[in-house]
Amino acid sequence: MSARRALEYARGHRDEFLAQLKEFVRMPSVSAQPRHARDLERCAHWLGSHLQGIGLERIRIIATERHPLVYAEWLRARGRPTLLIYGHYDVQPADPLGEWRSAPFTPTVRGRDLYGRGACDDKGQLWTHVKALESYLATGDALPVNVKCLFEGEEEIGSTHLFPFVARMRPLLAADAAVMSDTRMLAPDRPAISYAERGALYLELTVSGPRHDLHSGSFGGAVHNPLQVLCEIIAKLHDDDRRVAIPGFYERVRRYGARARASMAKSGPSDAEILADAQTQESWGERAYSLYERTTLRPALTINGITGGYQGPGGKGIIPARASAKLSFRLVPNQDPGEVELLVRQHIARLTPASARSSIRTLSRASPAVVDPRHPAMRAAAFAYRKGFGADPVFLRSGGTIPILSAFQKYLGIPTVLMGFALPDDRMHAPNEKFHIPNLFKGIDTSIWFMDALSKSRAHTGSDRAIPSAHGGHSLLRRKLRTLGTAR
Amino acid sequence: MSARRALEYARGHRDEFLAQLKEFVRMPSVSAQPRHARDLERCAHWLGSHLQGIGLERIRIIATERHPLVYAEWLRARGRPTLLIYGHYDVQPADPLGEWRSAPFTPTVRGRDLYGRGACDDKGQLWTHVKALESYLATGDALPVNVKCLFEGEEEIGSTHLFPFVARMRPLLAADAAVMSDTRMLAPDRPAISYAERGALYLELTVSGPRHDLHSGSFGGAVHNPLQVLCEIIAKLHDDDRRVAIPGFYERVRRYGARARASMAKSGPSDAEILADAQTQESWGERAYSLYERTTLRPALTINGITGGYQGPGGKGIIPARASAKLSFRLVPNQDPGEVELLVRQHIARLTPASARSSIRTLSRASPAVVDPRHPAMRAAAFAYRKGFGADPVFLRSGGTIPILSAFQKYLGIPTVLMGFALPDDRMHAPNEKFHIPNLFKGIDTSIWFMDALSKSRAHTGSDRAIPSAHGGHSLLRRKLRTLGTAR
Repeated sequence: MSARRALEYARGHRDEFLAQLKEFVRMPSVSAQPRHARDLERCAHWLGSHLQGIGLERIRIIATERHPLVYAEWLRARGRPTLLIYGHYDVQPADPLGEWRSAPFTPTVRGRDLYGRGACDDKGQLWTHVKALESYLATGDALPVNVKCLFEGEEEIGSTHLFPFVARMRPLLAADAAVMSDTRMLAPDRPAISYAERGALYLELTVSGPRHDLHSGSFGGAVHNPLQVLCEIIAKLHDDDRRVAIPGFYERVRRYGARARASMAKSGPSDAEILADAQTQESWGERAYSLYERTTLRPALTINGITGGYQGPGGKGIIPARASAKLSFRLVPNQDPGEVELLVRQHIARLTPASARSSIRTLSRASPAVVDPRHPAMRAAAFAYRKGFGADPVFLRSGGTIPILSAFQKYLGIPTVLMGFALPDDRMHAPNEKFHIPNLFKGIDTSIWFMDALSKSRAHTGSDRAIPSAHGGHSLLRRKLRTLGTAR
Repeated sequence: MSARRALEYARGHRDEFLAQLKEFVRMPSVSAQPRHARDLERCAHWLGSHLQGIGLERIRIIATERHPLVYAEWLRARGRPTLLIYGHYDVQPADPLGEWRSAPFTPTVRGRDLYGRGACDDKGQLWTHVKALESYLATGDALPVNVKCLFEGEEEIGSTHLFPFVARMRPLLAADAAVMSDTRMLAPDRPAISYAERGALYLELTVSGPRHDLHSGSFGGAVHNPLQVLCEIIAKLHDDDRRVAIPGFYERVRRYGARARASMAKSGPSDAEILADAQTQESWGERAYSLYERTTLRPALTINGITGGYQGPGGKGIIPARASAKLSFRLVPNQDPGEVELLVRQHIARLTPASARSSIRTLSRASPAVVDPRHPAMRAAAFAYRKGFGADPVFLRSGGTIPILSAFQKYLGIPTVLMGFALPDDRMHAPNEKFHIPNLFKGIDTSIWFMDALSKSRAHTGSDRAIPSAHGGHSLLRRKLRTLGTAR
């Protein structure tokens, strides 16, 4: 289990690794769309077989009520730490299809990028760890640490069935630290480790009016139009200062002093960088905060979609019977998704006029999460980035949401290292998603170094910072991590 | 050409007439949807062949840039008035498909109703006149009046190509009056003649933001969301008094005195009747007006549809790059669609924040129109209703829009009799559209009586009210009609 031999193997097999990733991306594992259920099933089995092929053991395709989990392990590194590698094989819906330069599930190399839905989020990033494991097992028949792999198929729809599984399977999943790669670097030569993720609350708001669609000539002016009511409600969810206008929404939001803000600003991207990433000139949002703060320290409400009435070409003179919107809240310490949901429900009930009815369906909830950058697994990751990318990583807050983070903290008592390999222009969730191919290979190297460093971290960091073994280990370090906002 | 023999023929062929109407409804002639273009072509040819089969002459399928017109005539009633029969063979889109009890283009009889898209609007109503013509021609080889039929395939998308055709083909279309059946009765035993139609202005508003969809985790709170901007603009298009909040919008709206309003109220439906028609308990709109007034005398703005972002099942964390809404304005005398459009464009430009862009596309425009109830053709129609339905019709204002009305007035100088056979619960434009089968048959009888009365109207009404023949006739009566709101 020499890191050097594993690295050599990885370098010698790059073409093969890329070809396999294409095969992985080709499967349209869109978890949100029921018509793809069998594609997820197929993708899970393909992944399980692959893990078996590279030498992992106890492969399990674990059925849930929706999309299966894939589990695999290798636990022969007695006395060494145990690493839980988490990733997801499901992907975002590919629409709007018309905007893709090449078909979303026809992985295509253009320049030094691999284009395709899921190329980056999360199949490509997950692949870095799988190929690192293969590189060790193919060259030394062993891994430097114990490893448990847990790959899910519902990350993009809220990890609904993963949470109860983690809660139920604590002994199976017991580990000293988790690692996942589903976050961004600042630039190809500027690696980053996210130590904070926003929570999320996804709701679907439906406004109903007349029992069926009405002719807008016959009834226009005499009946409250559900689409108009929906717009009127949504317009009232932000105030003129661009803040979320739901009473109590900001009450629990943690405030940071000038020094803490200045220190975070140093590592975070500038406003100009964030706007360049978004390919837009115009910023928006709470005036007293930088764009980095608005997207990480501060909560936000986004309307992800609206549907109602006639959407085809030309016109259709109707008052639709109903209209609905998908709302997502991004939450920060110390907001609680359940508590925010209650505030939202109460407020929308108040905003709904007597001339219409509104209802809210909860799609998913996740708490915000923060990991201590001084944890030895975080240090091992920083070392690995230096070796893999030739640069020190910056420790960043991220605006996204990885629901599993708080679950790992809550049920397994372990921190998760967010070792991201995505680039700002990788267009995760958007048409023309891509993964930068050099990052696939550097990511594999980094994962090889990470496991190597982790296996030695007890020696490197002194016993008080050692990662306790899952096999009878103590929980000294576990107490050192903070995962905020999960203390319901 | 005895009305009595025609009526007998019609009564003897009811099953056949209904079967033919089903064949007509079975063709999915959805003019708004390009994928149905060939269905409209097929439907036009089917209709043309049918008109030829019943004995009309000079059949023409007239190509336009989009969907063809169908023309046919019978001009052998020398010295008698000429009637232009107008109708449309195109239909509204059938979606939402899931809400139909039987497939929209599988015409189905349930109880005494024929269900199917277009069964009422306008195939069934158009059929009443075609079958009245057949009944005369089959029994006497002649019609009591000269007849020109003009059936279009673009009524539901704004009659774009009909207007220039009417302007260009004045000699072909010259007539003394027009009749069309595309409006509603008050109840099965309460016929009605609409003498006023609202105008319409259909616009599509698009709001654009970032160049492509963005991850709402990474950018939520820092970029103005086009869907949110769209909602904020739409919410500002009505004020708290439920009036359209566009400066100048009401400036040209004609105001009526207390006496005129009281007189109109007598013939019009009550608030309770309108709400029952709409199958809703809650009214809405301008407080100082009855629901009948709100939907006929007063203009209105309806949001017909909104689309933007993710609309599939579950959630998707995006800020969409753009979002759009279909807006329809219903206009009343003396509003001008072009002038209102300018006001709307100016106002929406003012409402668009610097952090987003908006654009507006015009889908169609139509002027409001009013016909004098004392016109002899209107009197002939009233007589025909008494014979066909056993009840005097009430003269009503309608909230809908029939763009061709103002074109017939402007280019041909003739009034249009709106001899409606639809019932309030026929769900025109909505799922489960139907036509009441007894109204099909009574409508045919009424059309037979109408042509009979029209042929004698010179004698009935005295020479100053005679309908001048299109063949060398004078235009005395033409001066008597008012078609308001078209005097740009």
